[in-house]
Amino acid sequence: MQQTDRTLFRPARKQDVPAIVAMLADDHLGATREGDPDDERYLAAFERVDANPYDELIVAEQDGEVVGTMQLTYLAGLSRLGAERCQIEAVRVAASTRGQGLGRRMIQWGIDRARERGCAIVQLTSDKSRTDAHRFYDNLGFTDSHVGYKLSLS
Amino acid sequence: MQQTDRTLFRPARKQDVPAIVAMLADDHLGATREGDPDDERYLAAFERVDANPYDELIVAEQDGEVVGTMQLTYLAGLSRLGAERCQIEAVRVAASTRGQGLGRRMIQWGIDRARERGCAIVQLTSDKSRTDAHRFYDNLGFTDSHVGYKLSLS
Repeated sequence: MQQTDRTLFRPARKQDVPAIVAMLADDHLGATREGDPDDERYLAAFERVDANPYDELIVAEQDGEVVGTMQLTYLAGLSRLGAERCQIEAVRVAASTRGQGLGRRMIQWGIDRARERGCAIVQLTSDKSRTDAHRFYDNLGFTDSHVGYKLSLS
Repeated sequence: MQQTDRTLFRPARKQDVPAIVAMLADDHLGATREGDPDDERYLAAFERVDANPYDELIVAEQDGEVVGTMQLTYLAGLSRLGAERCQIEAVRVAASTRGQGLGRRMIQWGIDRARERGCAIVQLTSDKSRTDAHRFYDNLGFTDSHVGYKLSLS
């Protein structure tokens, strides 16, 4: 847990799930693929993430309100001398809080956390349509070195 | 475990680690970032992957020889109604075996395994310089919908 200005970054709790789902859905891509925040599948996914020592679902809290979220996953593998990687997924900032630099502070917090753990790399993918996000990650020092492929099975 | 033609796809064992590392290194990108196959860091990474129920390090075996590898990781998250995703990393086919369709059968085997588990998506990233691989993933039905960002911490 860490306080930045009036923002607290901390692991999500079960009661944060509806606010996190609302942020996932409040997005031009998320709007088409999310459902009722009380859907029990969200809670089941939360329980699995919460129980996994290599997953951290993080929220940003301001004045008791959840205003941002991201998931950090620490991936093991043989590549690069068995290096651990930190993967960032599901990054969202609440509409009410955009334009105040919260996303930048949140990702920087994640990078710092990955560095403290000894991760060799932080990685993420961003939909090609999110051009604002691409400038954002470029500015944070990320390199757009890869093509991100998805295959939907549903 | 599954037999395809004379190829067996199965979880890697500890004694496969040097052969896997040799394939990771025999590559224009891997050559610069891998080390001695007997480096204990590879074995430590193998032990962690092997102990994690959401990781599967797979090898392709032909006539008792390891000729291909990939890692499957089953990622949980709240997005898409709490869907599980299968992420593929560290895909390699031994130089002696390239051009025989092994890579295609291996990735298809991974896709089938993800579908059996109920994963909603299979995802992977590929370095922009691997243009042959891009045609390969296009042909397998993947969509290059994302930009893949990396930030090196070392």
